[in-house]
Amino acid sequence: MIRNFKLVVEYDGTDFHGWQVQPGRRTVQGEIERALGVMTRAAIRIQGSGRTDAGVHALGQTASFSLATRLAAEALHKGLNSLLPGDIVIRECRETGADFHARFSAVGKRYRYTVLNRAVPSALDRRTAWHIRRPLDLDAMREAAGYLLGRHDFRTFEGAGSPRSDTVRIIRRADWEAGSEGFLYFHIAGDGFLRYMVRNIVGTLVETGSGKRTASSMPDLLAAGDRRRAAATAPPQGLCLMEVVYPPH
Amino acid sequence: MIRNFKLVVEYDGTDFHGWQVQPGRRTVQGEIERALGVMTRAAIRIQGSGRTDAGVHALGQTASFSLATRLAAEALHKGLNSLLPGDIVIRECRETGADFHARFSAVGKRYRYTVLNRAVPSALDRRTAWHIRRPLDLDAMREAAGYLLGRHDFRTFEGAGSPRSDTVRIIRRADWEAGSEGFLYFHIAGDGFLRYMVRNIVGTLVETGSGKRTASSMPDLLAAGDRRRAAATAPPQGLCLMEVVYPPH
Repeated sequence: MIRNFKLVVEYDGTDFHGWQVQPGRRTVQGEIERALGVMTRAAIRIQGSGRTDAGVHALGQTASFSLATRLAAEALHKGLNSLLPGDIVIRECRETGADFHARFSAVGKRYRYTVLNRAVPSALDRRTAWHIRRPLDLDAMREAAGYLLGRHDFRTFEGAGSPRSDTVRIIRRADWEAGSEGFLYFHIAGDGFLRYMVRNIVGTLVETGSGKRTASSMPDLLAAGDRRRAAATAPPQGLCLMEVVYPPH
Repeated sequence: MIRNFKLVVEYDGTDFHGWQVQPGRRTVQGEIERALGVMTRAAIRIQGSGRTDAGVHALGQTASFSLATRLAAEALHKGLNSLLPGDIVIRECRETGADFHARFSAVGKRYRYTVLNRAVPSALDRRTAWHIRRPLDLDAMREAAGYLLGRHDFRTFEGAGSPRSDTVRIIRRADWEAGSEGFLYFHIAGDGFLRYMVRNIVGTLVETGSGKRTASSMPDLLAAGDRRRAAATAPPQGLCLMEVVYPPH
């Protein structure tokens, strides 16, 4: 009997060429498919909720796949975790309805971007934070982030060379949390994100925080729809996909 | 003019053979001495507050050294951080009095040990936590930890093959903090620690939490002075040297 499964996946993206399977490169999808292949002796394609780029992390990436098996979801879960390398962990594995698809069923995503804003970098957090030495104006970054809320065309923040026909998205959360020791966490949630959109937004907010642009220029920047007016893409290691949201079933 | 400097050092211990310099092995002390040698063209020996073992981390290890230099502490600080690999960061560098010695001037140390107590391991925290699948009784671990407070002979928790003549230490703090997502943090502070003492204590507290021994057996265990009655040493990656305490000057 063909059954449908949903995975919730955590990974340390440092040593991966991103999520998506690519010949000859170590990817998260590739490692999970390999482990499933070992368990089931079948070639299984899994569907992620979306790609994450090289160096980006996840605490709550999701994936789905179909499989003819008698194995219980719990046995699959334990088997996968025993076969996967330490930098990938399956957090949840459960059977879903036949119509569940990690990408097409998703109604929202939540990301966190970590900035370390102090004079000295961190040894222990170097793989998960963007170190910025110059002091940032958190109030300005919060004000600028506020303009992102609601329904906007986010073409300005889309990665070059990856045009989508529909670049309108709804952002439900966009705020900065101040942690201890200079850590700053940007939380952003919405119905979907364009390629590089979170990292391009963070790059622009950080330029706002360092005084290179004003918070009040954000509406104009959004309206311009011109990628060249946004800041450079923030580095990947600060980004973590926290959650993919699905409708209650 | 010979001047004396104090460093506060953070490191990710994963890829080091511990703190202490060893020929042909990558150690934290060795890397810092190498960077100092590049800057000053002199062979400089630094004194750590004590060794940390392979795989153990630090947010606040300290070291001291003497150097004939005109460089300001700030220039030394920046130079060192630019020469050191990413898994070592000098958090502070300042000139101290001639009588300061990172080891002999220390009057206390504080450590944190991180346990991840849930069914699934963590990908992002695999280098900094001990994953324990079986549920632990936090109340029992807290009760057992309480018996460590005060002045005791800690020979029971001293690493085998590393006897010290004086094994009496004063513990001022020994408590468990419950974090989110199954993370547990053991905080311990005292005037000094024997080799492997924190990890042997954590191993024993975890056995208490999993029901292999009772909290109330801790006083007898301490009194016995017999290493063979304590639990196996907890793994290194959960341990972090947080702070070395010196008298106010």
